[in-house]
Amino acid sequence: MHTGHDPADHDHFAAYDEDPAFPLHVRGKIEVRPTVRVRDNAGLALAYTPGVGRVSQALAADPSLAWRYTWKSNAVLIVTDGTAVLGLGDIGPVAALPVMEGKSLLFKEFGNIDCVPICLDTTDVDEIVRTVAHIAPAYGGINLEDISAPRCFEIERRLQEILDIPVFHDDQHGTAVVVTAALENAAKVTGRELSDIRVVMSGAGAAGVAIANMLLAAGVGDVSLSDRVGVIGKHRTDLTDVKADLAERTNRLALTGSLFDAMRGADVFVGVSSGTVPVDVVRTMAPEAIVFSLANPNPEIHPDVAHAAGAAVVATGRSDFPNQINNVLAFPGIFRGALDYGAKRITEGMKLAAADAIAGLVGDELAPDYVVPDPFDPRLSATVAHAVGMAAIHDGVVRRG
Amino acid sequence: MHTGHDPADHDHFAAYDEDPAFPLHVRGKIEVRPTVRVRDNAGLALAYTPGVGRVSQALAADPSLAWRYTWKSNAVLIVTDGTAVLGLGDIGPVAALPVMEGKSLLFKEFGNIDCVPICLDTTDVDEIVRTVAHIAPAYGGINLEDISAPRCFEIERRLQEILDIPVFHDDQHGTAVVVTAALENAAKVTGRELSDIRVVMSGAGAAGVAIANMLLAAGVGDVSLSDRVGVIGKHRTDLTDVKADLAERTNRLALTGSLFDAMRGADVFVGVSSGTVPVDVVRTMAPEAIVFSLANPNPEIHPDVAHAAGAAVVATGRSDFPNQINNVLAFPGIFRGALDYGAKRITEGMKLAAADAIAGLVGDELAPDYVVPDPFDPRLSATVAHAVGMAAIHDGVVRRG
Repeated sequence: MHTGHDPADHDHFAAYDEDPAFPLHVRGKIEVRPTVRVRDNAGLALAYTPGVGRVSQALAADPSLAWRYTWKSNAVLIVTDGTAVLGLGDIGPVAALPVMEGKSLLFKEFGNIDCVPICLDTTDVDEIVRTVAHIAPAYGGINLEDISAPRCFEIERRLQEILDIPVFHDDQHGTAVVVTAALENAAKVTGRELSDIRVVMSGAGAAGVAIANMLLAAGVGDVSLSDRVGVIGKHRTDLTDVKADLAERTNRLALTGSLFDAMRGADVFVGVSSGTVPVDVVRTMAPEAIVFSLANPNPEIHPDVAHAAGAAVVATGRSDFPNQINNVLAFPGIFRGALDYGAKRITEGMKLAAADAIAGLVGDELAPDYVVPDPFDPRLSATVAHAVGMAAIHDGVVRRG
Repeated sequence: MHTGHDPADHDHFAAYDEDPAFPLHVRGKIEVRPTVRVRDNAGLALAYTPGVGRVSQALAADPSLAWRYTWKSNAVLIVTDGTAVLGLGDIGPVAALPVMEGKSLLFKEFGNIDCVPICLDTTDVDEIVRTVAHIAPAYGGINLEDISAPRCFEIERRLQEILDIPVFHDDQHGTAVVVTAALENAAKVTGRELSDIRVVMSGAGAAGVAIANMLLAAGVGDVSLSDRVGVIGKHRTDLTDVKADLAERTNRLALTGSLFDAMRGADVFVGVSSGTVPVDVVRTMAPEAIVFSLANPNPEIHPDVAHAAGAAVVATGRSDFPNQINNVLAFPGIFRGALDYGAKRITEGMKLAAADAIAGLVGDELAPDYVVPDPFDPRLSATVAHAVGMAAIHDGVVRRG
């Protein structure tokens, strides 16, 4: 393999390869393989010319046959511009590729879906929308990934308007689905009704906005978000369109102070920022508080600290603590359902159904340190897919009524 | 699988599925799979967060590391706009997908290369160039496929100017490489020197233009092409830029008539059109003529007819006759070599090296009915790749000198 480095490369790479993540990534993590074997000219004559020509001719007459006679019904584009990659920020399209390969790996392992990484060399909204629309015909869905707010909102909305296949920004909706599932169970285990709950969120980027919208759709009593300036509400004159819209629907108490002010008496804290929350502030929350500190790799509040301050349920984004809020609980099953049931888009109802299905898998094992199922639960993808498919039919978004 | 058809679908599909090519195509012919296994949270922590973040961070600092730590060094985009698919013509991007999947299958089986089908919903040259450039960062090469002339020439040229990875229009260059290899051996078996040979070609589209250029580069004495109007030469006032350029370098005898006129006394006929050539015209060619009738599925001259008219070597595009001119002899090894040796483009020298390597594999078995090797020859891909890589180094187009 030619790498563009000089003969001293061996030492150069050896330094990287001391970290076990690097040797695992050599030559990447995914491949494109045939699903049919071609061993001789007779096989070639079916899989390639002249046989393939008869299939193409049939598709030219009836393009809907592509759902049956091509990989389209199981193929999804994972699209990023590299502007908001993990906690690393704007690292560009090439540096984002290992994450996109990882996402493809997870889609296959957990949802048996074939995902192609597309790392765009443009961050212009118009160019991204046009480019993705141009390359969509061979794919049954679009998963947007690690695109920074607020551009991600417009890109998703415009692509979904153009395309009749699901367009899903996982950083928004995958996270929102899993947070909603976790909150449903956390409410149950602490004896709360969703309608009585007041949530305070730190962070109003892609994930924060989507979580707020979904919690409200799920029936949560009140949500207030805070960004770097403070709590978002109608008093603010500095809001983007997206945040101004949120100000209309969130913060019913018309709070005007800081994040920490808002947390006083709150039932739930959801952290999707990179800030920290002092232990004293957690102590001001309602008794048996629910704390979702999702910043990675450093949660806003360490789980031990949160528990010591009186929190009853604590979740993080990390796999080394209980209650990991991990998107892999949601996106494989959501796309599995959307693809198998022929959904043209992913509705609020489908996302809520996914959240309910994920929460339901916890079942009798529900406990303060077990509010979401294990990602390796073998029932996960099919259970979520089925719930999502039923919701798609209910919402009337499947390809033929 | 939801197909967008109504409950009577079973009968609907049964009609198609009587042709064995159709059941083979159900759900497509390719998949995207992990090359590393993730069985538990420890595996996730290396292949996905937090491990992948360290790899992405390293790539952000040194993007050339992508050649080692991502799939880029083995990943190629197969790009079509569906305008010139096999012999079917402009059937659109969705109908082209089975052919692109087949190409991906061949790339993997014969070259172990991971190829992603991109079927574009635009036929505008500017849009195609911009779109492909935007999605290129995660890929090590671009294979253009089934794009109609003359747009294919400009698209290839402009993309290669923008990108520092190989851009290769297989319908042009793959075909040209295999025709050149076949002609080298056909000349040998009929006792000719390439420099003494006069070739007449029917068809001046993508393949015809590329074959003419390559045969001239290989040292063939003269080539004349004819299109629907007649022989291309300086006497013509109706030529596109590409054909006018060819008129300067081909047709040394300044022929002005029809294809059939030009064939009188010619050593070689190469057909890459959809026309037919009468047996009487073949009789006017030089003794021991070489006839490559590459139209598919119906050769311009049936091999039996050509032999009866005196042709010594006959080749077609079909697998059910001897001497199949099949691009699969060339493109897997050419890309294998270009990728492994870090070529930034594919030069004339690399294509000629590929042709020589393909011709050489026939070796002592050379005979009038065996001028090209079997596509399943296990030496093929590595032999071509090595020759192409050496030529890339010679031509100074590898990524570091």
